Amino acid sequence: MATGTRMESAPAPSPALIFETLLAYQRSAALVAAVELDLFRAVGDGPGDVASLAKACSASERGIRILCDYLTIMGLLVKVDGRYVHSSTSAAFLDPRSPSCVASISRFLGNAAMHQPYEHLAEIVRNGRTSLPGQGSVEPENPIWVEFAHSMAPMMAPMAAPLGAIALNGLSGPVKVLDIAAGHGLFGIEVAKQNPQAEITALDWGQVLEVAKSNAEKAGVGNRYRTLPGSAFDVDYGGPYDIVLLTNFLHHFDVPTCTDLLRKVRASLRKDGRCASLEFVPNEDRVSPPMAAGFSLVMLASTAAGDAYTFHELESMYRGAGYDRISGQPVPGGPHTVVIGHA
Amino acid sequence: MATGTRMESAPAPSPALIFETLLAYQRSAALVAAVELDLFRAVGDGPGDVASLAKACSASERGIRILCDYLTIMGLLVKVDGRYVHSSTSAAFLDPRSPSCVASISRFLGNAAMHQPYEHLAEIVRNGRTSLPGQGSVEPENPIWVEFAHSMAPMMAPMAAPLGAIALNGLSGPVKVLDIAAGHGLFGIEVAKQNPQAEITALDWGQVLEVAKSNAEKAGVGNRYRTLPGSAFDVDYGGPYDIVLLTNFLHHFDVPTCTDLLRKVRASLRKDGRCASLEFVPNEDRVSPPMAAGFSLVMLASTAAGDAYTFHELESMYRGAGYDRISGQPVPGGPHTVVIGHA
Repeated sequence: MATGTRMESAPAPSPALIFETLLAYQRSAALVAAVELDLFRAVGDGPGDVASLAKACSASERGIRILCDYLTIMGLLVKVDGRYVHSSTSAAFLDPRSPSCVASISRFLGNAAMHQPYEHLAEIVRNGRTSLPGQGSVEPENPIWVEFAHSMAPMMAPMAAPLGAIALNGLSGPVKVLDIAAGHGLFGIEVAKQNPQAEITALDWGQVLEVAKSNAEKAGVGNRYRTLPGSAFDVDYGGPYDIVLLTNFLHHFDVPTCTDLLRKVRASLRKDGRCASLEFVPNEDRVSPPMAAGFSLVMLASTAAGDAYTFHELESMYRGAGYDRISGQPVPGGPHTVVIGHA
Repeated sequence: MATGTRMESAPAPSPALIFETLLAYQRSAALVAAVELDLFRAVGDGPGDVASLAKACSASERGIRILCDYLTIMGLLVKVDGRYVHSSTSAAFLDPRSPSCVASISRFLGNAAMHQPYEHLAEIVRNGRTSLPGQGSVEPENPIWVEFAHSMAPMMAPMAAPLGAIALNGLSGPVKVLDIAAGHGLFGIEVAKQNPQAEITALDWGQVLEVAKSNAEKAGVGNRYRTLPGSAFDVDYGGPYDIVLLTNFLHHFDVPTCTDLLRKVRASLRKDGRCASLEFVPNEDRVSPPMAAGFSLVMLASTAAGDAYTFHELESMYRGAGYDRISGQPVPGGPHTVVIGHA
């Protein structure tokens, strides 16, 4: 038996892990259902007995009792004398009145279109690419990216400040920033907030940019925010830019495509300008840390040739595209890494 | 903040649990795919590099590499110098050459028909019952029980010996046993193995009984094994029996239905005969132990009114049906409890 795995410290091998793994899909479904029913708001309202929660959620008592027990087993609620109250996790991240609530991510991550490829994952492993048509999740104008822009912002928000600081690296005065695959727009918006003379150009599909534009206006930076609708591969970037943000994008494509895109980005940067990509970057072993490494499966299921690239792979793409001074900086508290290269 | 939850011992609350929960369905899909591809056999064969595994599984290298990394993250494989070898769990329970292999359970637990209700679990919570038509998983002649009988036997096998011993309780000489919802038949077969004069009558849907009958013949007890096809609610049990086994059955129904059925069972028992049910029995808090308590969600999703009943609820059903000397005995090493009542 090989050593070095976390299973070695477990007592005796048991099939429990296998049973739990095969039922793990029920955990996802339970959380998606609870958010859809607005259950975490009802729990926050109290008093948290089954009858009150069922009434608040317009749901059956049998359903609410079983769902709340299941959420308690998962650590997403606490049961005290037959009543359900928030756990520290649900209070902070699932009650819609919490400023750090991320419940909306269940609309993107629980989206039926996102789940569909996993129903025949063996076929995907055989073929080595998504079962979705064409380029999978990155087909032009795929509506899931509008959902992403709406739903995933709260998950990305804590990363915006560190990413903005890393990308700006103290740069004051007028800066021009291109935010490729802007999505919710939070990253470009954050740069505009950190540097009051920054001008942001946000690139994404037209419908997605409506979300970004609206967020920019809400953040008070709408007058320094313009949009550039279209494909990052086809559209003329303009420029030259001081900074290009390339967030959660490269992982969707194969190495030559990423390298070509980085080359196109470099051509839009002023001399010494920087391209900052935000990526899930596993260690060289590709099996740690769990969240970054596990993201490869999402790319297998939903793209033709994407991956969670290691730092060495990303560095090699940057270098192949003509960048130097390439570095990686993990974003504190999350699974992401910012990779910077200089034109 | 309430106390007493396992989250309290965690460092700072983070949304990681929420993210992981929403992606948990991918863990189920990965294991189902690996079994379907016969990957664990290929890993056991060695040498375990991506190219060899891809060839053995008739799959792409990209797909195999990403799937194996994901299984490694989950503790279901170990990666050593770029090669994949068994973890203690996969060696014992997923390699088809292991006598304790349970890989086949992924065919039942990963069955698309079993997963379907979870795609709209919020609606099920609202309505308080399965979205499947009629009685859900326990509709007459539902083909999933043939799959259950074929696939779930290895998971149930370790429970057969303790259940048989508890049910027999030292009874030697001729005994007549009725095995209701026999499925794979392992429990009745085990009683026949422990008592060479036991005669077993197995009751289930006709197609399911073909599996049980075949298992009885393989076990060398076919000459003491007869079958009684039909519904446990409708068919005439015959009797009188010394022992009735009622395994993994009561949880599908509501309390009055269970009580009525236990009464019918009691009428088929000789005086002092015993009814032994095998159940997921959560503690009175209904949120522990995790596997037994979590089973309620399966009953919500797949039945009209079933549940994982507490011992007090089961005791009350038995008592209502006229039994006395009612006791519960957890089966070692599994999530099940045997509940015995005397006629």
